[in-house]
Amino acid sequence: MKLISYQTNGQDSYGAVVGERVVDLRAVFGARAPDLKALIAAGLVDEARTAVQNAKATLPLNEVQLLPVVPNPGKIFCIGLNYGEHVRETGKQVTEKPVIFLRVADSQLAHGEDIVRPRVSERLDYEGEIAIVIGQGGRHIAEADAWQHIAGYSCYNDGSVRDWQLHTSQWAPGKNFWRTGGFGPWLVTADEIAPDQQMTLVTRLNGQEMQRATTDMMIHSIPRQIAYISAFIPLEPGDVIVTGTPGGVGNKRTPPVFMKPGDVVEIEVDAIGVLRNGIRDE
Amino acid sequence: MKLISYQTNGQDSYGAVVGERVVDLRAVFGARAPDLKALIAAGLVDEARTAVQNAKATLPLNEVQLLPVVPNPGKIFCIGLNYGEHVRETGKQVTEKPVIFLRVADSQLAHGEDIVRPRVSERLDYEGEIAIVIGQGGRHIAEADAWQHIAGYSCYNDGSVRDWQLHTSQWAPGKNFWRTGGFGPWLVTADEIAPDQQMTLVTRLNGQEMQRATTDMMIHSIPRQIAYISAFIPLEPGDVIVTGTPGGVGNKRTPPVFMKPGDVVEIEVDAIGVLRNGIRDE
Repeated sequence: MKLISYQTNGQDSYGAVVGERVVDLRAVFGARAPDLKALIAAGLVDEARTAVQNAKATLPLNEVQLLPVVPNPGKIFCIGLNYGEHVRETGKQVTEKPVIFLRVADSQLAHGEDIVRPRVSERLDYEGEIAIVIGQGGRHIAEADAWQHIAGYSCYNDGSVRDWQLHTSQWAPGKNFWRTGGFGPWLVTADEIAPDQQMTLVTRLNGQEMQRATTDMMIHSIPRQIAYISAFIPLEPGDVIVTGTPGGVGNKRTPPVFMKPGDVVEIEVDAIGVLRNGIRDE
Repeated sequence: MKLISYQTNGQDSYGAVVGERVVDLRAVFGARAPDLKALIAAGLVDEARTAVQNAKATLPLNEVQLLPVVPNPGKIFCIGLNYGEHVRETGKQVTEKPVIFLRVADSQLAHGEDIVRPRVSERLDYEGEIAIVIGQGGRHIAEADAWQHIAGYSCYNDGSVRDWQLHTSQWAPGKNFWRTGGFGPWLVTADEIAPDQQMTLVTRLNGQEMQRATTDMMIHSIPRQIAYISAFIPLEPGDVIVTGTPGGVGNKRTPPVFMKPGDVVEIEVDAIGVLRNGIRDE
């Protein structure tokens, strides 16, 4: 099942994509689950699947305004330096523990929206990634149990403003510009992607392939990320983990490549779909 | 006015402290402002002040369960290395731009609650700080206008798990352990603290003074912090900026001092009050 968050007629909702149409799940669940995070938290994803099978999808997908897959996650963890080629191109070392930094929800945007190149910098770079959304929460989750805590998967573009990322040792500013974190187009629920299933991640800028990797190339696996994070703070339903970017970022090319107004950036994951965003100036 | 968030009879509320009693402002504003962040966002702080003057404070302060001053901030920015003595003791350099990292709301706890020393580390350290809470939001706020965007001030203990802070270059794990960020006891509204008024910050561990500084010693002033952050993302009502800790952290003492169960840590700011927390094991 492909789950989306969206607006229609100025009203926030969420639903399931069936072909080119949408089943409005907010209409099904009402106050029991007013948004996608609430649906996941209430353990209603299986019930939603049954509802979708019995419902008629009447709303055309191209008539809704998509929102970030989870517009209101309590926490967004990003994994840095998690593919060997990216570690090498940045001149860093592989770390024994996952590199973790945070994004805020306000930095996100939806599939189809424009990433905003800020007024204060032209060094706007892409980072294609696979995002996981937490289903059942937990603390001190063992690696062996980690797959059971995943509600589903999406594509993520961890858009980065490179000069602001490197103003100091801490990357938060460059990783949290307004409307730089593309998250979509949908959540593919975990029943459709087997634990440890190999996925292929490709980033294209204006149609040209810039990054390519498979998930077996991750230095710190998804279960290890979940175990490490949940050792310091409980994971909650709807929390997002953005699992790291492969080699080939624009900043480390010769000459460097940065995204500019009119560009189109795509993050494709074979098991998920394509996240596509244009670029515009602030 | 001193504003608090609290629970009473299992119900979340917020109010104003008058002597040893509380005026329940949720009862005054109802759906117009269901929590303190909403009160600030709706621009109702002045109206709250009038309501408090006309109300009878009937609820004993010692009968409510305090919550973090803002339990649900959209964003929590922390400033690192912002006092010279702390920069020196860590062996780092003063940076031209503020060092910014993020906390998540789930890492916070209230005045009077116990900070939790985690299962995975004994290197739990205090960091006494002054927190500001944003009133009117904005993007690209000029330093000259910054004071007008502050709703008020509180004490903060940016509790840090030092080994996890230094697992990699990014500090997020060590700065986001569950229930390590003390935030309280209350918000002193900005009308009671003049722009750029010098405040004195003192940290005590079991009664012994560990840190002392005045706000004129900050490397990056509060207006500069607001201007820098709002250059990358809009500040929203209820957002929190934790403005940095002075020299004297436990980790850099000889021998190092870490907090352990039974300890009591206090952050006192003369213009605000005292944030007091015990320590317990997870």
